[in-house]
Amino acid sequence: MTLRSEIFEQPDVLRGALSANQSIAARARDMLTGAGIGHILIAARGTSDNAARYAKYAWGTKLSMPVTLAAPSLYTKYQQPPDLSSAAVVGISQSGQSPDLLAVLTEGRRQGRPTIAITNDPESPMADIVDLVVPLKAGPERSVAATKTYTASLLAIAMIADDVVDLDEIPGSVAGALDAEQAIVAAVERTGPMPDAVILGRGYNRSTAFEWALKLQEMAYVLANPFSTADFAHGPFAVLEQDFPLLAVVPAGVIADDNLTLVRRARDEGDARITLLTNIDVPDLPTVNLPMIEEWLSPIMFIVAAQLFTLHAASLAGVDPETPRGLRKVTRTT
Amino acid sequence: MTLRSEIFEQPDVLRGALSANQSIAARARDMLTGAGIGHILIAARGTSDNAARYAKYAWGTKLSMPVTLAAPSLYTKYQQPPDLSSAAVVGISQSGQSPDLLAVLTEGRRQGRPTIAITNDPESPMADIVDLVVPLKAGPERSVAATKTYTASLLAIAMIADDVVDLDEIPGSVAGALDAEQAIVAAVERTGPMPDAVILGRGYNRSTAFEWALKLQEMAYVLANPFSTADFAHGPFAVLEQDFPLLAVVPAGVIADDNLTLVRRARDEGDARITLLTNIDVPDLPTVNLPMIEEWLSPIMFIVAAQLFTLHAASLAGVDPETPRGLRKVTRTT
Repeated sequence: MTLRSEIFEQPDVLRGALSANQSIAARARDMLTGAGIGHILIAARGTSDNAARYAKYAWGTKLSMPVTLAAPSLYTKYQQPPDLSSAAVVGISQSGQSPDLLAVLTEGRRQGRPTIAITNDPESPMADIVDLVVPLKAGPERSVAATKTYTASLLAIAMIADDVVDLDEIPGSVAGALDAEQAIVAAVERTGPMPDAVILGRGYNRSTAFEWALKLQEMAYVLANPFSTADFAHGPFAVLEQDFPLLAVVPAGVIADDNLTLVRRARDEGDARITLLTNIDVPDLPTVNLPMIEEWLSPIMFIVAAQLFTLHAASLAGVDPETPRGLRKVTRTT
Repeated sequence: MTLRSEIFEQPDVLRGALSANQSIAARARDMLTGAGIGHILIAARGTSDNAARYAKYAWGTKLSMPVTLAAPSLYTKYQQPPDLSSAAVVGISQSGQSPDLLAVLTEGRRQGRPTIAITNDPESPMADIVDLVVPLKAGPERSVAATKTYTASLLAIAMIADDVVDLDEIPGSVAGALDAEQAIVAAVERTGPMPDAVILGRGYNRSTAFEWALKLQEMAYVLANPFSTADFAHGPFAVLEQDFPLLAVVPAGVIADDNLTLVRRARDEGDARITLLTNIDVPDLPTVNLPMIEEWLSPIMFIVAAQLFTLHAASLAGVDPETPRGLRKVTRTT
């Protein structure tokens, strides 16, 4: 099964990229923090947009740079691109082909701004038009649902954010998440049928909530709705009802207490079917226990557990996640 | 019924704010486009975050400014706020009270940046700490679900973006949307029960899709999932199945063709229960026909039709939208 083997390739893919990309990541870091750069504009869609959500926190904390997600239609449909005179422009795309993302990078270049592509295809049109290409080094990804190119994108972002000196921490924790497969299968079986679901995460792992939801949508046809834990408290909380699957990502670190407070409130006021992916001890809630890793790097590990969860949820629902309805590997939007 | 009367107050609220806020909006515009400002950072949550999504397009096209949505946890939980030296900082909040939003504005002030609050409470803590307050002038909003403060926020953003010279276009079109109530009721009845739903919009009306989804969540307990039309094509399309409610906002303008292509594809490949809010003629799809208005101002009109849709969806579901489960009017997140 292609998808399963691509999920299990991830420790090796990450190890390879860690050793190959150190110097190019440092060059990208220098470009993004150069004189006259006040913010980083990222153009991305789908899975890569979730990687951009991670960059918002990783580059926010480690590079002290505000990160702006581009609105591509300003560049294409409306043809009124903003003034990018204080921006560095980064495209994130597995294929490097979607015309709307190319339009953002082309405009950045036209305005004389530094441009970077994070892509799995260094021969792609996106790679052609930028100043620097950070290759994902993930190898060919044949499944429609992106898995290893997502974690490789997160790793590239992390390596640009800061020197990753412990070369085993990330691949080792990802291997540990894969080793948790039996506990993940048990959580899927306990959760049962999922026509829809709410997925919660915050901070660095807001990206994980959004990417887990996207995997559930495209691989298992679950109408999964991702929220920042804080946003969920501002309105959507009302939606909780009997027997609702509530999936949350709770890393060790400064946001754990808030996450747990909200999940416990959901348990007490509703009757949600709760599962936490966590690497802390939470005896009073149903958890999948995963390896310890620094919070800022933890999205790379947590999403791998979420990919396995989704693979088994698809299997339980009798869906073939290799051939999602209505999707192709390369989506071209304008 | 408080909520219903607040929805119907909107033409008057908008007319009042249009005449009261012309000069203060012009002052805000000058501040946001002053020397040394390369991007606008907005801090907002919930409904106000959807207003920020509108600002991303309105200020992007009319002021040529890239708009960045703040990640408040960088300022609170992680205590590693980015360098804001090229930013102007704007808070949008009905109550002006949430501590995480105050933290972003306080940091902007600490870094010596221009700060603006768009709020319905000019005596609030947020109003206290900024250089300029743009008051919503919406009057007291007693319902938990924000309606008139949302359209008043959109109007404030539009007036800051550009001189709104036709003082009747917006309130007039909103009154026209309210006049469409019978067609909206028919659409709700045709749609039937909605445990979940997909809401599509793009460009200026991406904000409408997100706010419509939030209203459905908090007023009618629908697990509504909003998408940019372009993002939906990149993966979530797989989720479409038999009898799925698919609600789309299709304004006259440059994005209409793409929106309609995707909705027709959903109709042909799935069996979604489709309703369009639109002000163009679409004979082959079920529509609620709404007044013509310039696309960039149309989110103010479309959301009012969506509010009415939601009110009647709640009524059909036997839910009292005045007292949403688990919510209070002022939510304080950190």
